[in-house]
Amino acid sequence: MAQSWLDELKWNAEGLLPVVAQDASSGRILMQAWANREALATTQKEGRAVYWSRSRHKLWRKGEESGHIQKLNAIYLDCDADSLVYKIEQIGGIACHTGRQSCFYRKLVDNAWQEIEPVLKEPNDIYKK
Amino acid sequence: MAQSWLDELKWNAEGLLPVVAQDASSGRILMQAWANREALATTQKEGRAVYWSRSRHKLWRKGEESGHIQKLNAIYLDCDADSLVYKIEQIGGIACHTGRQSCFYRKLVDNAWQEIEPVLKEPNDIYKK
Repeated sequence: MAQSWLDELKWNAEGLLPVVAQDASSGRILMQAWANREALATTQKEGRAVYWSRSRHKLWRKGEESGHIQKLNAIYLDCDADSLVYKIEQIGGIACHTGRQSCFYRKLVDNAWQEIEPVLKEPNDIYKK
Repeated sequence: MAQSWLDELKWNAEGLLPVVAQDASSGRILMQAWANREALATTQKEGRAVYWSRSRHKLWRKGEESGHIQKLNAIYLDCDADSLVYKIEQIGGIACHTGRQSCFYRKLVDNAWQEIEPVLKEPNDIYKK
């Protein structure tokens, strides 16, 4: 992968950058995950959001199990070249493995984390064997 | 700081979490930075975005030099309790130290990072001595 746009990024000690996935139409922030060089290159090549799974230590094509694919609209880079935004279209309208639209479903209210959005689909129904 | 809502977070090995600052009215993603426990507690207490500066190794009250304070609207937490969103009002309309509205002013176009937004104020005019 001799692509110069990948060489401009300041990967951290683990070879990763934080990525925020934002719904291209609503502007809602759906999740935050991580990309290594291969994940980012694959995202650009395949036109869908691909991350590096730190828990499973492998490439994670978002939606590969759930069907909740994220179609890529655009990739943005910040001033320090160490953070990315994927603007995406969320297939199925669910980004979170809990079955909610967004992973950021907890809001700080009166010094406590309050769940502020509903489960749209039960995880057991999403991750059927 | 014996606050249980802070104890629920999964701080990384350096005691930090990634934070995304999002404009509360437009939904625009303005920047991504980091918070430690003290930065987050201070954000909640003071009602303005506070980060941990990894380069300066100290608490960073956003806008302390530039005047570009971020008034806090709400704090959101993700499903894994390891990523935060600050919804904020960006005073001065400029979040980036380059003088742009957002730090994410580069977009990947034809395998190159293209600057897609203007400098609203020259950094020399922002960071006057």
